[in-house]
Amino acid sequence: MIENELFQFSTGDALMAGVASHGVPISDLLSYGDHGLGTFKFLIGEMIILDGNVYQMKSDGSIQNIDVTDGSIIAPFAMVTHFKPTITVKMLIPGKNALFDILSKVVPGAHNLYLAMRMDGFFKCITVRTVGGQSTPSEGLLDVGKNQVSHTLENVEGTLIGFRSPQYMQGISVAGDHLHFISTTHSKGGHVLAFEAETEVELKVAAIWKIHLELPRDADFNNAYLAADRAALAIVEG
Amino acid sequence: MIENELFQFSTGDALMAGVASHGVPISDLLSYGDHGLGTFKFLIGEMIILDGNVYQMKSDGSIQNIDVTDGSIIAPFAMVTHFKPTITVKMLIPGKNALFDILSKVVPGAHNLYLAMRMDGFFKCITVRTVGGQSTPSEGLLDVGKNQVSHTLENVEGTLIGFRSPQYMQGISVAGDHLHFISTTHSKGGHVLAFEAETEVELKVAAIWKIHLELPRDADFNNAYLAADRAALAIVEG
Repeated sequence: MIENELFQFSTGDALMAGVASHGVPISDLLSYGDHGLGTFKFLIGEMIILDGNVYQMKSDGSIQNIDVTDGSIIAPFAMVTHFKPTITVKMLIPGKNALFDILSKVVPGAHNLYLAMRMDGFFKCITVRTVGGQSTPSEGLLDVGKNQVSHTLENVEGTLIGFRSPQYMQGISVAGDHLHFISTTHSKGGHVLAFEAETEVELKVAAIWKIHLELPRDADFNNAYLAADRAALAIVEG
Repeated sequence: MIENELFQFSTGDALMAGVASHGVPISDLLSYGDHGLGTFKFLIGEMIILDGNVYQMKSDGSIQNIDVTDGSIIAPFAMVTHFKPTITVKMLIPGKNALFDILSKVVPGAHNLYLAMRMDGFFKCITVRTVGGQSTPSEGLLDVGKNQVSHTLENVEGTLIGFRSPQYMQGISVAGDHLHFISTTHSKGGHVLAFEAETEVELKVAAIWKIHLELPRDADFNNAYLAADRAALAIVEG
C-alpha cells in the first residue's frame, strides 16, 4: 500500500454487533499505516496510532504504549493509512462543527471521498470517551457505550488523529469525522466527542480514494446480523 | 493483489446516480483480475470478463471482444478478481433461487463475506438484460433500466460469471448474487435475471474477504447525491 490509501479491518456494523473477540494483530496493522485509530480485543479502550506508535487508552484513565512486536495484541476494528498530508493549514478551529465545515472547504473535490486528518494544538477543553470493554462476549457497542466513561480535559496540548468517511459508507466505516485524541505527554486521551480551541491549531489533511477493506473470518463475524443499524452507530460513534 | 481478492471501481449507488462518464481503463482493470463484470462508459452495455477476455454485450444483441490494449475504453463500474476457485461441484441447479441456496451451503463461514463464482453448463432458458446506455449524461440507472432490453435465450450453452455481495454492502456493491452470462459461442449474453437448467452444471466458487475499493475522482462523482437508495438498486440490479 502506498501513501494515503486506507486499510480498514472489519466494519462499524460488526462492532455494533459486538464482534470484538478476534482481529488483526497490531504488528500486521502497522504494515498498512502509521496513522490511525481503532479499538482492542473485547472493546477494551480506544486505539490511537501516532507516527507509528500505538497507544491503548482505557476507561480507568491509563494509557499504554503498546509493544507492537507482541503478536497477541489484536484490533477487532481499525482504520490506518500511511499518512502524507497534501494540505497543511494553521488556523483557529473553535470546535468540531467548525472543523467539519473547514474540512469540507480545504479539500476540493472530496465530498464523496475519505479524508485522513491530524490536528496538533492547545485545547481549552476536549471531551473524550473511552469504552470500558464488553461485560460479556459479543456485547454490542451500543450497550458497551452506555457504560463508557467521558472525561473533559482542560488546557491540554495534544494531537487529534482520524478520518472523515463519506455518508454513504455509514455502517461500513463511521460516517462523518471520527477522531481520537492523545495529549503530548501521552497521559490523557480517548475518542473525541467535542473540543474547544481559542488559539490556532495545525491541521493536516489528505484525501483518500483507495480503500482496502479486510473482513473478519471468525464465527462471531459470520454469525452476526449486520443489519446496518446506521442510526445506532451514529449515536455511539458520532 | 493476490488470488480471490476483489477489486471494485466505484459503487452501486454512484451508478444509480448516473455517474458513468469516467472510469478505470480496461487495461488497468485487468491488472486486478481475469474474472468479473461491470459496465462501460455511459452505461452502454454489460461487461463480462471471462478468463481475462473482456466482452461488451450491447442492447442491440451484438457482442464485441474488447481490445484491452485500447486505453480509451473505460469502465465506470466494475468488479474483478484473480479467480481461483476453492470449491467445484457438478450438480443440477434448476434456477437462480436454487443457486442462492446452494451457494449459502457450499461455502461454510462465508455468510458475511463476498463470493466469486462461475457456472458453466447448458441452460434450457436464460433471461438476460442489456442496458442500452444513457440518453442524457448522468441519467440514473433506474431510468436507464426502464429502457433496458431483456431477451430470453433458449437451449444455450455458456458461462455465468459473478459475485455474491453481503447484504450490508448494498449500495456499495450489489447485494446478493450478481451474474452476467455469455454463450460459449460469444454471440449472446447480458445481465442475468433468471435461468432454468435441467442438466448438471459445473459451479466454481471462492470466498473473498479482502476488498479493494477505488472511488472515482471526477466532478460527477463528487457532486452525486449518494443517498444509498438501496431499494431502487435492488430493483434494477436484483
